[in-house]
Amino acid sequence: MHEIQWRFAPSLVEDALKQILPDNLAPDSLAGHARLRQAMHYAVFSGGKRLRSQLVLEAAGVVSADFDALRALSAACSLEIIHAYSLVHDDLPSMDNADTRRGRPSCHKAFDEATAILVGDALLTLAFEIMTGDALGQDYAGDAATRLRAVQLIARAAGEAGMVGGQAVDITWSHGRAENVSRLQLLQMQAMKTGALIRVACEVGAVLGGGTNTQIQALSRYGEHLGRAFQIQDDILDVEGDPELTGKSATDTTNYKLTAPAFFGLAESKQLARESSEAAIAALQEFGDRAAALRQLAYFVVQRDK
Amino acid sequence: MHEIQWRFAPSLVEDALKQILPDNLAPDSLAGHARLRQAMHYAVFSGGKRLRSQLVLEAAGVVSADFDALRALSAACSLEIIHAYSLVHDDLPSMDNADTRRGRPSCHKAFDEATAILVGDALLTLAFEIMTGDALGQDYAGDAATRLRAVQLIARAAGEAGMVGGQAVDITWSHGRAENVSRLQLLQMQAMKTGALIRVACEVGAVLGGGTNTQIQALSRYGEHLGRAFQIQDDILDVEGDPELTGKSATDTTNYKLTAPAFFGLAESKQLARESSEAAIAALQEFGDRAAALRQLAYFVVQRDK
Repeated sequence: MHEIQWRFAPSLVEDALKQILPDNLAPDSLAGHARLRQAMHYAVFSGGKRLRSQLVLEAAGVVSADFDALRALSAACSLEIIHAYSLVHDDLPSMDNADTRRGRPSCHKAFDEATAILVGDALLTLAFEIMTGDALGQDYAGDAATRLRAVQLIARAAGEAGMVGGQAVDITWSHGRAENVSRLQLLQMQAMKTGALIRVACEVGAVLGGGTNTQIQALSRYGEHLGRAFQIQDDILDVEGDPELTGKSATDTTNYKLTAPAFFGLAESKQLARESSEAAIAALQEFGDRAAALRQLAYFVVQRDK
Repeated sequence: MHEIQWRFAPSLVEDALKQILPDNLAPDSLAGHARLRQAMHYAVFSGGKRLRSQLVLEAAGVVSADFDALRALSAACSLEIIHAYSLVHDDLPSMDNADTRRGRPSCHKAFDEATAILVGDALLTLAFEIMTGDALGQDYAGDAATRLRAVQLIARAAGEAGMVGGQAVDITWSHGRAENVSRLQLLQMQAMKTGALIRVACEVGAVLGGGTNTQIQALSRYGEHLGRAFQIQDDILDVEGDPELTGKSATDTTNYKLTAPAFFGLAESKQLARESSEAAIAALQEFGDRAAALRQLAYFVVQRDK
C-alpha cells in the first residue's frame, strides 16, 4: 500500500514509537526487567504496516483544516502498541500456537512464554499510559476531556466487547466448537476481533481532530467497512496468497480457523470485500479531497497481495 | 482485618463491581463471548480482601473533609479489577503454575488457559474503560484533568516499571536464574510487583480527593511502607501460616520463589515488617484522626494470620 499519499510520513509514527520504546535501554540491575523491555521492543518493532496509526492521523487531518493533527500522535502510537500486544498474545501456544510472525520467531519463541504474556500485559498498560501522559512532550497533549473520551473509546474497542471478545469467540471456534456457526456470526466475530480497533482508530482521530458528531459518525462508518474489507482480504490471502509475500505460515488453515472463504467461497468473499471497500469510500463523501488518502486506502486494501 | 473501621462499608465496592460485571448476563449468540464474560466474573468475585479499593476510598476521605470521596469509587473498582487480572495471569502454567487460588480452582483450571489469558487482557482493558467512563453513573465522574492524572498514575504503577515489571523479575528468579540476587534487589522486585499497586491506590485516592501535593506525597509514602509490610507479612505467612487460613497451597516454597524469610531469616523479616508498618503510620502524622482507619490497617497488616 505504498502508493497511498499519507498526510504524514510513516516515519513520524515510527520515530514516536522509538521515543516511547528506545532500544538503547538504560542499564538495569534487575535482569528480568531488562529482558521484559527488550521483548516489548521486539514485539512493537516487527515490521507491521502501521495501518491503525495512519488511520488515526488521517482521520484527525480530514476533520481539522486548521487543527494540528499531530495532537493525535500519542493515540496513534497507543493503537499500534495495542495491536502489537494482541499479536503477541494471539500467537501463544494456548491460542493460535504460531511459531513465526512476519517471518521472524513469534515473541514467545524468541523469548519464552511467560515473558510473552507479560509483554502483552505491559504493552497494553503502556498504551494507556501514553494516551494519558505526555511521553511525546506537552505539545501532543490536547485538552483533558477530549483525551479522556478518546481513551474511553479505545478501551471499549480493545476489550471484552471488541477485540478481546472477538479473539475469545475465534479460539472457541478454532478449538473445535464451531458447529452451527452462521455467516452473520462469522462477520460479527471479525467485526469484534479486527474491525473494532480499525474502526476506533478512525473515530479517535476524528474526536482528537475536533470533528463534529456527524463527522465522527461518518469516519466511524468508514472504519467499520474498511475493517471488514481488510479482514476478508486477509482471509483471501490466507487461501491464495504467496507465503513469501504475506510472511505468514499457513496456520489459519491448519488450525481450522473459520474464515470468509470457508463460509462464502472465494468468489463471494472477493465480492464482499469489494462491496465493503465501496461502502467505506461512500462514507467519506462529505469530506471531498481532504479524504483522498483514506479513499486510496479503501481501494488498495482489497487489491493488496500481502 | 475485620477490626478496621473503614469510612465506607466494603459492600460499597462489592456492589459497584457487581454493577460493572453483573452475573445475570444478557443472552449472547456468540458462545465464546459469553464464556469470556463468565470467566471475568469468576476472576473478580473470588473472595479477595478488597484492600486496594478501600485504600483508594480512605485516602480520598483523609484529604477531603467536604469532598465526596465516592468520586474515587470507579478508580477503586479499577484497581480491584487490575489486581484480579494480575492474579489470573500469575497463576498461568508458564508463570507460577498454580492450580488453586483462595481455595478454588484458578481461572485457567476452572476454564482453560486461552480463556484465562483473555480474561486478564479484558479485565485490564476494562479497568481503563471504567476509569475514563461513567459505568457507575455521572455522579462518580469528577473533572477530566484530575481523572486523566489518576489514570496516568495507575497505568505507570501497573505496567513495565511497576507491577508487570516486578512479575517479570520474579519469574526470572523463580525459573532458576536467581544467583547473586541481593537483599536490595529482592525489596526492589517486591516494591514493583506488589508495592506499586498498593502505593498508587493511596496516591490516586489522594489525587481524586483533591489533596494538596504535600498530602499526596504523604499518602504515597504511607502506601509505599504499607506495601512492603504487606508483602513481607505475606512471605512470612507462606512459611508459618496455616494453609487452611491463607487459602494458599505451598507453591511459593515449592516453586523456589525468593521471599523475605529466605533472604533475611524469619526473625529479621518480622522486624522489617514491623518497621515498615511503623514508617507507614509515621507518614500519616499530619492527618490526625481522619487517618484512623489507615493507621489501624498498617497496624493489623503485620498481625494478620491470613
